[in-house]
Amino acid sequence: MSVLLEFSMTPIGKGEGVSKYVSRSIDIISKSGLEYRANPMGTVIEGDWDEAFAVVKKCFQRMQKDCNRISTNVKIDYRKGAKHRITGKIESVEKRLGRKVKK
Amino acid sequence: MSVLLEFSMTPIGKGEGVSKYVSRSIDIISKSGLEYRANPMGTVIEGDWDEAFAVVKKCFQRMQKDCNRISTNVKIDYRKGAKHRITGKIESVEKRLGRKVKK
Amino acid sequence: MSVLLEFSMTPIGKGEGVSKYVSRSIDIISKSGLEYRANPMGTVIEGDWDEAFAVVKKCFQRMQKDCNRISTNVKIDYRKGAKHRITGKIESVEKRLGRKVKK
Amino acid sequence: MSVLLEFSMTPIGKGEGVSKYVSRSIDIISKSGLEYRANPMGTVIEGDWDEAFAVVKKCFQRMQKDCNRISTNVKIDYRKGAKHRITGKIESVEKRLGRKVKK
Repeated sequence: MSVLLEFSMTPIGKGEGVSKYVSRSIDIISKSGLEYRANPMGTVIEGDWDEAFAVVKKCFQRMQKDCNRISTNVKIDYRKGAKHRITGKIESVEKRLGRKVKK
Repeated sequence: MSVLLEFSMTPIGKGEGVSKYVSRSIDIISKSGLEYRANPMGTVIEGDWDEAFAVVKKCFQRMQKDCNRISTNVKIDYRKGAKHRITGKIESVEKRLGRKVKK
Repeated sequence: MSVLLEFSMTPIGKGEGVSKYVSRSIDIISKSGLEYRANPMGTVIEGDWDEAFAVVKKCFQRMQKDCNRISTNVKIDYRKGAKHRITGKIESVEKRLGRKVKK
Repeated sequence: MSVLLEFSMTPIGKGEGVSKYVSRSIDIISKSGLEYRANPMGTVIEGDWDEAFAVVKKCFQRMQKDCNRISTNVKIDYRKGAKHRITGKIESVEKRLGRKVKK
């Protein structure tokens, strides 16, 4: 059951700048083998439910090593039988609009 | 690693009213053995990361049986060593305010 | 256009414990005149779109006074013509299940 | 007070495919004059709190015309004095990792 999953994970109490911690998550994601796209508010990955959540958990366990409080948001979009939605959903919007949008 | 996890899970394309599907999730949650609190926008559960996500997955798999598109939101709050936060967080706010709040 | 709106607002970089800041938000909400319910992961309010977002903005402006980075999540559920959903949605689930759930 | 705001808005009860409705939102956003980036799970915009929420409301009011139930998620990241974060946050991650990431 392939899903699109977007998540963001932020340490609370490690200062205002958190890119050090976010970079480690994106490093884990980019090496996971799953398709992903980073955006300014989170990262979208596509894969099986278990595969996708294994990546989220791996990022969490890495952050847990030096962060005592962590806030995480996960949004999942499942559509039966659909694939390649990480690019397909925006392409479908562009087709309707008859023009490219900023990505 | 105990976490507070709030989630909501909604079928897309099964009509405007979805309480039939939400009820099944809350039935699963209430029988999971984990502490939970239902609110008008989701359900909060407290437990280990794996236990909590196992409940989310169980709800998802039940919904998948008759729903082709499902939208899910999960928010996780982890704080090292903290327990009984499902009641403790609001109690802490009430203590600060010196009065009860509506729950 | 009445909506159900759940939100949480957290300062980033003010330490691990944030109940001081959350308490101020719940104080503002409870004095807003709108129906609300606090839960361990956020607060649900019911009201017109503009009224509800005015409360969110007021909490934000208060937090901005002494917090340089703020993370906010807002979830809105709109259903045409529906009212008293802050209690009605869970009642509808309880009716289907034939029993009370923990709130 | 400039913010980064990501949102997604989905009609409930208009079938499984919702790109018709999402396209109208992205059309409104792209004509708003605010910087934006569409991703497979939502759209990120950057602007003043009031400007950004005015765009969200405009999308909502358009959807309301023919959708009786609407689910909306909004995530806001505010950082005092910070600008151009719609590109800057990922650039900061790339700088740390010493390589480009998929966007």
